[in-house]
Amino acid sequence: MDKINIREKLALFDEYWTPKIAGELNGQHVKLVKLSGEFVWHKHDNEDELFLVVQGALSMQFRERTVQIEEGEFIIVPRGIEACPRADNEVHVLVFEPIGTLNTGDAISDKMLRELDEI
Amino acid sequence: MDKINIREKLALFDEYWTPKIAGELNGQHVKLVKLSGEFVWHKHDNEDELFLVVQGALSMQFRERTVQIEEGEFIIVPRGIEACPRADNEVHVLVFEPIGTLNTGDAISDKMLRELDEI
Repeated sequence: MDKINIREKLALFDEYWTPKIAGELNGQHVKLVKLSGEFVWHKHDNEDELFLVVQGALSMQFRERTVQIEEGEFIIVPRGIEACPRADNEVHVLVFEPIGTLNTGDAISDKMLRELDEI
Repeated sequence: MDKINIREKLALFDEYWTPKIAGELNGQHVKLVKLSGEFVWHKHDNEDELFLVVQGALSMQFRERTVQIEEGEFIIVPRGIEACPRADNEVHVLVFEPIGTLNTGDAISDKMLRELDEI
């Protein structure tokens, strides 16, 4: 029941596309991640994902359009929807999603991470 | 799949202790709420709750201690733990908890809300 300072936690690591687990509740994880560049097109068949931008601007690309999410904004990507996050500049993001959600979803990618560190 | 601007949504209402539903994912709700004063001591037997402070400072009182959560910080209150939120000044909070979580938990209180508006 200690509080978490989001920016202090984000200052503890530099790697991109490497979510860190910052909290757990109701079968969900709170993750913090730094993004730069483009990820990989993927979808999650069984998980919805929330992305809350803490710093910078995140471009969430869908097949039909792109939504730019700025600091203090969030977006929920529903299960089954193809998306590809893109960060033209460094972006810091808080993610809420079910425990066990694979970062790359259904994509075959060397960006897949099976184990995440806690922070 | 539209983005949500947290501060813009918070500007749409003034009532205290009246959470508004701002999103839904994986059986959980994202709620926005303004707090002022002291709430009621309560616990939730089956739900963990996350409180992320968007503006101001929230005092989360537990029986043994009080944690002050500032802007950009969050705390997770586990199920079964008695707590009483207090806002010495107005505080704006994002709450993440399972759909159907009752604001007053197990407390008998006229602050109980059965229906929440979406925003």
